[in-house]
Amino acid sequence: MVTRTLAELAAELGGEVIGDGSTVIRGVAGIREALPGDITFLANSRYDAYLEETRASAVICSREPRQAILPLLQVDNPYLAFQRVVKVFRPEQYRPAVGVSPSAIVDGEAELGPGVSIGPNCVVERGARIGARTVVMAGSYVGVNVLIGEDGYLFPRVTIREECVIGARSIIHSGAVIGSDGFGFAFDTGRYHKVPQVGNVVIGDDVEIGANTTIDRATTDSTRIGDGTKIDNLVQIGHNVVIGRHCIIVAQVGISGSTELEDFVTLGGQAGLVGHIRLGTGSIVGAQSGVTKSVPASTTVIGFPAMPHGLFRRVHAYIQRLPQLFQRTKQLEERVASMESRTEREEVR
Amino acid sequence: MVTRTLAELAAELGGEVIGDGSTVIRGVAGIREALPGDITFLANSRYDAYLEETRASAVICSREPRQAILPLLQVDNPYLAFQRVVKVFRPEQYRPAVGVSPSAIVDGEAELGPGVSIGPNCVVERGARIGARTVVMAGSYVGVNVLIGEDGYLFPRVTIREECVIGARSIIHSGAVIGSDGFGFAFDTGRYHKVPQVGNVVIGDDVEIGANTTIDRATTDSTRIGDGTKIDNLVQIGHNVVIGRHCIIVAQVGISGSTELEDFVTLGGQAGLVGHIRLGTGSIVGAQSGVTKSVPASTTVIGFPAMPHGLFRRVHAYIQRLPQLFQRTKQLEERVASMESRTEREEVR
Amino acid sequence: MVTRTLAELAAELGGEVIGDGSTVIRGVAGIREALPGDITFLANSRYDAYLEETRASAVICSREPRQAILPLLQVDNPYLAFQRVVKVFRPEQYRPAVGVSPSAIVDGEAELGPGVSIGPNCVVERGARIGARTVVMAGSYVGVNVLIGEDGYLFPRVTIREECVIGARSIIHSGAVIGSDGFGFAFDTGRYHKVPQVGNVVIGDDVEIGANTTIDRATTDSTRIGDGTKIDNLVQIGHNVVIGRHCIIVAQVGISGSTELEDFVTLGGQAGLVGHIRLGTGSIVGAQSGVTKSVPASTTVIGFPAMPHGLFRRVHAYIQRLPQLFQRTKQLEERVASMESRTEREEVR
Repeated sequence: MVTRTLAELAAELGGEVIGDGSTVIRGVAGIREALPGDITFLANSRYDAYLEETRASAVICSREPRQAILPLLQVDNPYLAFQRVVKVFRPEQYRPAVGVSPSAIVDGEAELGPGVSIGPNCVVERGARIGARTVVMAGSYVGVNVLIGEDGYLFPRVTIREECVIGARSIIHSGAVIGSDGFGFAFDTGRYHKVPQVGNVVIGDDVEIGANTTIDRATTDSTRIGDGTKIDNLVQIGHNVVIGRHCIIVAQVGISGSTELEDFVTLGGQAGLVGHIRLGTGSIVGAQSGVTKSVPASTTVIGFPAMPHGLFRRVHAYIQRLPQLFQRTKQLEERVASMESRTEREEVR
Repeated sequence: MVTRTLAELAAELGGEVIGDGSTVIRGVAGIREALPGDITFLANSRYDAYLEETRASAVICSREPRQAILPLLQVDNPYLAFQRVVKVFRPEQYRPAVGVSPSAIVDGEAELGPGVSIGPNCVVERGARIGARTVVMAGSYVGVNVLIGEDGYLFPRVTIREECVIGARSIIHSGAVIGSDGFGFAFDTGRYHKVPQVGNVVIGDDVEIGANTTIDRATTDSTRIGDGTKIDNLVQIGHNVVIGRHCIIVAQVGISGSTELEDFVTLGGQAGLVGHIRLGTGSIVGAQSGVTKSVPASTTVIGFPAMPHGLFRRVHAYIQRLPQLFQRTKQLEERVASMESRTEREEVR
Repeated sequence: MVTRTLAELAAELGGEVIGDGSTVIRGVAGIREALPGDITFLANSRYDAYLEETRASAVICSREPRQAILPLLQVDNPYLAFQRVVKVFRPEQYRPAVGVSPSAIVDGEAELGPGVSIGPNCVVERGARIGARTVVMAGSYVGVNVLIGEDGYLFPRVTIREECVIGARSIIHSGAVIGSDGFGFAFDTGRYHKVPQVGNVVIGDDVEIGANTTIDRATTDSTRIGDGTKIDNLVQIGHNVVIGRHCIIVAQVGISGSTELEDFVTLGGQAGLVGHIRLGTGSIVGAQSGVTKSVPASTTVIGFPAMPHGLFRRVHAYIQRLPQLFQRTKQLEERVASMESRTEREEVR
């Protein structure tokens, strides 16, 4: 395992240590995921509050003065420095060889860009086009007329159904299914009849899609995922959903049909959204929440049904005190009854 | 993209327009999923209430008089007309060629009906029987002694474990796993011991099963899914569950072992059901609800733990007013204390 | 279907029947999963309470005297007897032939132990080592440098990403993904940047992992699953999670990054755990609960946010009575107002 002292890293990066330069760093992580031994980074003083919560052993940050709760490594450009530190600690990751594996089945009418890697037992159907340097690992399926951009990465056993479009530099994890049929039925004569789902899924650039996540194709038109959006594992995205740019969708979220997320929306794990609502830019939905109506921009909602975060906290504090409230009400009733009977006696007198 | 005016569609279908015949129609969808530009259909005046909520631009309906909130296309048989309209707007869907792909591994003791299509890299094990015209797409696995009926459709990378039975015209989406072991263990001497799961899964006709959904085989006997039931993505169905006919099970639902659904039950997304309960015909479970006991027929329950829909609505209205209730109780206590001290003073006098 | 009377089973096992020896047994199951017709077993008198709830038709138990609510089959060693009964009712399960299927792609630098079975269309990458007698079924993917212990069983279409380690006798169900990237991003200059996930997943001995479950690799270091832990279908386990020994994790649970479970923890279905918390030995989380802070050993929590089980029951009983409480408060206010106005009138007099 690679280790560095903070002072050694500072020397490599041309930065300055504030605090203990002998701090040993063994890895690198985001500020919220970091554990002791990790170095993390802080690009923006807006996020200084995270400094108090992080478990990282040190933080790469800009040269502006700040209170050093933990050791800092100050540099001119924190994000560039962070990327260089990642390379220090990252073992060379496995990357399949360029070319088409002999066991892959690539249709003669598919087009592969230069530097593409198609792993063993993959299937690439007629009319599919795969951009330069994209990796498609073992057992993945790329359907008829699918377009995949440059520098993409499909891990083993991904399914991309026919006609779907994936942008450049997108990463799709194992078991994900892109373009499954939307869930649409018409009820008639005592049974459900399938409504054909003839749209597709269009995924932007720099999107990441988690393992075993499912994204349904639109009934007509497209289910859309915007540039830079990151989706975790086992998420369900219904037909005709439209997701903006740079959203974060944590594991096991479910988004019902035709709901729209604007940009920079965050959905906590296991949250569920009903169909046909809209979540404004920068809105946040708490984990496990059930969102039943549209959410304004920059608003945090939580609970089932979801309510503004402040109300939720107050309401739940009160809920835990309900047993006492019932007790207090009972006592009040007794005290009032006692006063009433006294008054009655006085009046009788 | 195909477009038609409502008047043009009326001419094709032999119907009559009530409202604006120049309305442009670009697609077709169920009444709840429809978006502007879609035409939908209403087979039964029981569902007239949906007319007020739908976002469709027009509705195919019967010739009985009704209030025209939005443009209507009246015909003799709405569902037949709807099916014809679907064909107008549906591009010809991709369908694999008939025959066995050279890269598929089909055991010599498997039986394939006429017109079957087995895609690249599929595996069909010994004793499996696949009915006429059924499509098995790339990378799917059909286990030992599996039976699949006629006109079925397995999308890429489906798994059907040994001994399971799938009815006619059933559609199974990518990544679904049918017949995984039920979750059963016996605790002894400080550890869990696996209880062998030696039953199977029996799925009826006209069933649809969503992407990455899992249906466990029974411990003994069969886990059963009735005719016409539609199951969305990422649903978990435990061992020995029995589901009736024409149920709707929305994405990410979980049904624990040995629970039974009668016919026409609807489970909202992310709902969870404990084991060994029974949901009556036509019962409805709200999204994200946690059902802890049996539900009578034609009853709607919601919440955690699930309660009747009316009670849930009242209770949750009150919950949001809890802060005020605590305030009112505090004021009452002060007012009563003030009266009590006054009474005491009077008695002392 | 195999059937036996209880008396016949007693003769085969050298046990004694307390109750009706003509009871017909058709299968075998755990005490909580058992249905009528099943025989189950009770290894420990601590669990005698289950005797009242089980639906089994008979119970294998020790020879100590106990009240016979249902027919008992008393033996010297209940668990051994149970294992023998399982063999009576279990049809011989399908097991693939030993050897490498001609269509499997096994890298020349992979090592296979004696008696290993590699199914059709599997891919085993360079440096992978698979222990003696392990079965890898059709279409599974075993990545670079993966280690799998002896007597393991991978069902069709499992994915084990590079560098992961699986202990002996572990069972992994179809569609499971082990070692997908953790969900970690650093926000900078208006967008999220991927934090490389360069750790792995280390799974102990005798672990079972359900269909379509996803277990993310650590950012650095390892995500760990302890010996004997059983994980159901569609579970999400985040990066750097550490799970102890003999835990039970029911379907659709989500565990956020870096959370730790000690030994013998039970998580009910669809429960969600935030990151960076610790659940003590023997703690239990109710189904659908949302756990937001650490849980002490031997404690049961439930609800959202999760609270101690006793408090949850009281609070929820009160919640359903909220409509009456509001009514009682309104009546109190009227009675107090009436008394106040009377007092005022008296003072005026």
